[in-house]
Amino acid sequence: MPINLLQATRAHTLALAAPLSDEDAQLQSMPDASPAKWHLAHTTWFFETLVLAPHLPGYTVFDERWPRLFNSYYESLGPRHARPQRGLLSRPSLAEVKAYRRHVDAALADLLPAAPPEALALIELGCHHEQQHQELLLTDVLHAFSCNPLLPAYDSSTPTPAKAPEQTWLKHPGGIVEVGHDGRGFAFDNEGPRHQALVTPFEISNRLVTCGEYADFIEAGGYREPLLWLSDGWAQVQALGWQAPAYWLAPGDPRAPSDDWQVFGLAGVQPLDPAAPVMQLSFYEAAAYAEWAGARLPTEFEWEAACALPGFDQAADQAWQWTRSSYAPYPGFKPAAGAVGEYNGKFMVGQQVLRGGSLATPAGHARLSYRNFFPPAARWQFSGVRLAR
Amino acid sequence: MPINLLQATRAHTLALAAPLSDEDAQLQSMPDASPAKWHLAHTTWFFETLVLAPHLPGYTVFDERWPRLFNSYYESLGPRHARPQRGLLSRPSLAEVKAYRRHVDAALADLLPAAPPEALALIELGCHHEQQHQELLLTDVLHAFSCNPLLPAYDSSTPTPAKAPEQTWLKHPGGIVEVGHDGRGFAFDNEGPRHQALVTPFEISNRLVTCGEYADFIEAGGYREPLLWLSDGWAQVQALGWQAPAYWLAPGDPRAPSDDWQVFGLAGVQPLDPAAPVMQLSFYEAAAYAEWAGARLPTEFEWEAACALPGFDQAADQAWQWTRSSYAPYPGFKPAAGAVGEYNGKFMVGQQVLRGGSLATPAGHARLSYRNFFPPAARWQFSGVRLAR
Amino acid sequence: MPINLLQATRAHTLALAAPLSDEDAQLQSMPDASPAKWHLAHTTWFFETLVLAPHLPGYTVFDERWPRLFNSYYESLGPRHARPQRGLLSRPSLAEVKAYRRHVDAALADLLPAAPPEALALIELGCHHEQQHQELLLTDVLHAFSCNPLLPAYDSSTPTPAKAPEQTWLKHPGGIVEVGHDGRGFAFDNEGPRHQALVTPFEISNRLVTCGEYADFIEAGGYREPLLWLSDGWAQVQALGWQAPAYWLAPGDPRAPSDDWQVFGLAGVQPLDPAAPVMQLSFYEAAAYAEWAGARLPTEFEWEAACALPGFDQAADQAWQWTRSSYAPYPGFKPAAGAVGEYNGKFMVGQQVLRGGSLATPAGHARLSYRNFFPPAARWQFSGVRLAR
Amino acid sequence: MPINLLQATRAHTLALAAPLSDEDAQLQSMPDASPAKWHLAHTTWFFETLVLAPHLPGYTVFDERWPRLFNSYYESLGPRHARPQRGLLSRPSLAEVKAYRRHVDAALADLLPAAPPEALALIELGCHHEQQHQELLLTDVLHAFSCNPLLPAYDSSTPTPAKAPEQTWLKHPGGIVEVGHDGRGFAFDNEGPRHQALVTPFEISNRLVTCGEYADFIEAGGYREPLLWLSDGWAQVQALGWQAPAYWLAPGDPRAPSDDWQVFGLAGVQPLDPAAPVMQLSFYEAAAYAEWAGARLPTEFEWEAACALPGFDQAADQAWQWTRSSYAPYPGFKPAAGAVGEYNGKFMVGQQVLRGGSLATPAGHARLSYRNFFPPAARWQFSGVRLAR
Repeated sequence: MPINLLQATRAHTLALAAPLSDEDAQLQSMPDASPAKWHLAHTTWFFETLVLAPHLPGYTVFDERWPRLFNSYYESLGPRHARPQRGLLSRPSLAEVKAYRRHVDAALADLLPAAPPEALALIELGCHHEQQHQELLLTDVLHAFSCNPLLPAYDSSTPTPAKAPEQTWLKHPGGIVEVGHDGRGFAFDNEGPRHQALVTPFEISNRLVTCGEYADFIEAGGYREPLLWLSDGWAQVQALGWQAPAYWLAPGDPRAPSDDWQVFGLAGVQPLDPAAPVMQLSFYEAAAYAEWAGARLPTEFEWEAACALPGFDQAADQAWQWTRSSYAPYPGFKPAAGAVGEYNGKFMVGQQVLRGGSLATPAGHARLSYRNFFPPAARWQFSGVRLAR
Repeated sequence: MPINLLQATRAHTLALAAPLSDEDAQLQSMPDASPAKWHLAHTTWFFETLVLAPHLPGYTVFDERWPRLFNSYYESLGPRHARPQRGLLSRPSLAEVKAYRRHVDAALADLLPAAPPEALALIELGCHHEQQHQELLLTDVLHAFSCNPLLPAYDSSTPTPAKAPEQTWLKHPGGIVEVGHDGRGFAFDNEGPRHQALVTPFEISNRLVTCGEYADFIEAGGYREPLLWLSDGWAQVQALGWQAPAYWLAPGDPRAPSDDWQVFGLAGVQPLDPAAPVMQLSFYEAAAYAEWAGARLPTEFEWEAACALPGFDQAADQAWQWTRSSYAPYPGFKPAAGAVGEYNGKFMVGQQVLRGGSLATPAGHARLSYRNFFPPAARWQFSGVRLAR
Repeated sequence: MPINLLQATRAHTLALAAPLSDEDAQLQSMPDASPAKWHLAHTTWFFETLVLAPHLPGYTVFDERWPRLFNSYYESLGPRHARPQRGLLSRPSLAEVKAYRRHVDAALADLLPAAPPEALALIELGCHHEQQHQELLLTDVLHAFSCNPLLPAYDSSTPTPAKAPEQTWLKHPGGIVEVGHDGRGFAFDNEGPRHQALVTPFEISNRLVTCGEYADFIEAGGYREPLLWLSDGWAQVQALGWQAPAYWLAPGDPRAPSDDWQVFGLAGVQPLDPAAPVMQLSFYEAAAYAEWAGARLPTEFEWEAACALPGFDQAADQAWQWTRSSYAPYPGFKPAAGAVGEYNGKFMVGQQVLRGGSLATPAGHARLSYRNFFPPAARWQFSGVRLAR
Repeated sequence: MPINLLQATRAHTLALAAPLSDEDAQLQSMPDASPAKWHLAHTTWFFETLVLAPHLPGYTVFDERWPRLFNSYYESLGPRHARPQRGLLSRPSLAEVKAYRRHVDAALADLLPAAPPEALALIELGCHHEQQHQELLLTDVLHAFSCNPLLPAYDSSTPTPAKAPEQTWLKHPGGIVEVGHDGRGFAFDNEGPRHQALVTPFEISNRLVTCGEYADFIEAGGYREPLLWLSDGWAQVQALGWQAPAYWLAPGDPRAPSDDWQVFGLAGVQPLDPAAPVMQLSFYEAAAYAEWAGARLPTEFEWEAACALPGFDQAADQAWQWTRSSYAPYPGFKPAAGAVGEYNGKFMVGQQVLRGGSLATPAGHARLSYRNFFPPAARWQFSGVRLAR
């Protein structure tokens, strides 16, 4: 484990929460999202419960009433506060949660010098776990802010996305490819075992679909043509009245009047940049767009195989990329032993794999073999589209 | 209008919010409840919109984006932020809302010396409106805290309820009685016109039903016997698993382990006091208890007529008292003119009248003719039971 | 008990079901409605369970598995098939249910000559109970047929409603009036005790509101003006998209294209008759119309007091009339003893009283003191509006 | 196209409906199921709309109001009656639907002698489409009957399932295998293109999991141990109270009292046969059972590759077999041209593939390459479990 990963990770989470008021950190805008304060506490609970309690002799739990508040979904680790009610925990306060972090950080510092290998492995896992929550902290805050008619900016200095290069198709010859984690460095259990997969020859786009291209799809009536959509997707379009990506503001929106499309993001409301990648799309929208564009979404193995092709751009720095692959176990997959075995495997149904990484993914977190996953209707992530054919 | 009513009312709201952190003030635990911060802002919006804007020349709205956030339900005053999403308004902050209060208070102070009578009447209405929200602020905070497994105390110095006197039946001879507001002092429009009503001879209890008596009902299987319940009430019992009043903790509850019943309230978790009035009951539970006790609930006119009987205790200082009367207009009722006409009349269906007042009702707010109202399933108010027969 | 009431009632139910196919009689279009076959069986179960089982020595239950299928809501009479699933009982067949009726009718004929008074009283109650279900059979079939795009006619020979007389206001002087059943002939328990009520002087319309008048309300934007509506009613209008009474077809409706409004009823789709009473209205719509018309709905006591005024027309032959009174117990009300005590009292919350009777009410069923009741959102009854002021 | 496929298919559907009364054929017990009458009509509408209208000159639509009633989900073929309301179509009657079938059958007979190849292809498709509905007719009737406390038998002469052979593991060496339809004979578009897939060496069970084995899982607490379940599956277990397969009756069930487990099926209630394959399982239950048994579900390609292994029993005659594969397009998949392109592709998300066939699958319908698919929570199909490892 890189020696300073723990410190850097813990510090970065606090830095991400710095622009938030106590009130901001309290918000839970839907059952699938969590308050920033809860992310701060849950990632700490993870270390306390899985590392300190079993591995640091004499460690005293910070507050014995808190584990039930901050356990997320580990059935083997006891009862849990209901997920949709995380936003009702005004106590403990943000200050108390930060004290909890300091308490646990200090104990981890005590443990580290003489930590046995299994503890070190769990600490490393805890760091990558916390990095995941760093991205969720941002996506969840952004969703909460999107529900406020004032549309506040998380951080108005957030850099604007890079302009897209010209679109080209990269060719892959197909054949047997090696996929999955190669064992060098950290990986989640769901990235293995590394194995062979057979892919048919295909082409893949060098870059993500842009806002300008997606605006053309809208303009062409994409949200009104059922034949472009998967059946479940069309049902969502009709039930929820989707007409554009989640955070697009149509011309004339009363919350931020303008004659043109605008996009709400971490920097607040900004004019739509036609060259920026489209984001905050559901899988359904990604698939409908691909259908309209005469293309399709890549499978996760195509994506992984193509990533090394010359010219493959915007791999992990802009938006996660929906794939046509559902989230399923690799051949020979075994969940990690112990409670952390609940980390990944039990979610392997009803979700689509996203590959790559996003502008909100912490440095060093993404990998070629990384498998992100969300339900096909999810729109609050930094999720975009790369076409294949 | 009493000269210092405005100042006292405005100050009291702030005092009620004083024990709350920024995070506490942000909580909305159900669509029917509002965050404390929202109560602070909405009551201020009421003065700004209905008093200052029309009556103070040159008044500048504090922030023109805020009225849509803090309008509650006035269709004639423009679009509104969705009620169930009030808890997502982390911005404006509590500090900003307090600044808003100061801005409006200062403008009201400017207006007062030369305020025309119609402005004064609206200011008085605004004070009584704010007093209503003072009680709601407390009931809503209490509900939010009840959703936190830590069960925090709002104010641990809250006095415990007085012991109930011995129960007796007070006799009323019936006949034509005068009901409704007599025109002396302030009243809401729904309290008039004053008119005659005919009541049959009846008896009414001198005091409220106690926790000890209600515990007997539970012990006797009251929540398991459908024949005691109104049909809608029994459906609620089954659908929601009701087994006791909303904030009672059964022996052994993991949130606050004890061998006996306890009750969560403003002072936190306290041992159940058998002599204290039972509260946080729905109308359905009140009616089922009365049926079990061989009695019934009084009508609102019986209540009003009986209030003057010697020995009538706990009229307005402990808990609102569910009546058998649905909330309906009095003969000749006319809503107040203008936007404030939306205040009461449009809610006159599907609700039951409560009479009296509670430990959370601000001093000077309750009246003999006062008509509180809630849906029959509501359990988060300081609502109790007085029997009649 | 009139000697031939039983025979006539039992025969009339069968006659009402005669136009229905086996498939029609199977339909349940919403949880609040029941299949015609179920009405045929339930009314029979009522006699079997409450009359024959206790009073006819040696009576054998037709099929011991059926009582749980055909008990409606009597908690004291055992477990029940879930109400929303009545439409799934393809077995027993309609033919078997008719055999059940014959079996019970024969047993009742055996019992009648020597029936003790309490049995006779229950038989009379059973007849009036069955008459209620006769009207429900029609309203439920009509609702089910309204869900079929073919809009079939129940009986195309159903007579068209009489033309409305010219509208006038009848004056009532107010004062103490006697209300409730006077003890002559049959009444349900909820119609008593007879008692005095005090009414303020008022005026009441001589007839019901017509379709033509209601069309003016629609034309004037009544369904788009929130200030006309009770708050709960406006919520329904928005949630369900109400734009007209339940069975009105707007011009151009694809199910029965026409240039004008049409109305679906027992005779199928017919041109809207401006002089016919408007029906299939909710309480909310009735109240909003009254508000728009500068009037109000009468209370149930006003209605009862006014019924004897010269010129009071359309009392009980066209449509039930929503009153401003919620359904509550009269002073001194006691439910009937035994299981039949569940008949009325337990529904006394959350419902509005309707007075009068309708074109679907069987002859001899309605009374001056009759209290019909439905939730304020109900629209599938023959319910209309009589104005007061 | 086999010359008599059309006649045989059309006749077989009628034969399957023969045991049903008009009332039985009307039942729709949930939105995902359809009435038998609707299956009879929809399969006929398919031929009328896709074959006769475009290919038989002068063909007159039987009733121009019916296509909107019997179109299932073809967006390109016009508006449709809402799926959850199919059970409300008492008109047209079953007799009228049978007349519709005769009308269409006669027209098809007219067309056949000179039918162009594209018409013949659509007729063949229509036959296989109708065969799918033959199985659904049975599963839907069985579900509807399961909602009736009388638990009627569809056909008490339905043969009991064959006893399971002894369980053994069949070894497959893995490697590149050919999957998908080979072009000989009919196939649905979703079975192609035929392509190569790479499978890891694996073992697969020679037969399905039996009721006796599954009873052991229940006995061992399988439905109470969250760690065995996928997260979504455990949520279902808790929300719906699952404790056994859909149609198992626990000892003492009041609908058919017994001291032992029983199973409801087409022959009515029968004692549980420990050697019979377990059926009416969801994917979640199949996966939890496999986890408990120390095995897993096969992928669809493993299944297809293993099918030819010596000893592979119960391939297609007992129960469809849940696979670990989600339903997704094969490489190069193109939906069929025209309206029939909506047949398969648009459902390719959120569903799991089942392979094999069941006791309710019509003769000649199943194929090695056949891909059946249902959502992971579906339990009303003849769906079982074959283990792999």
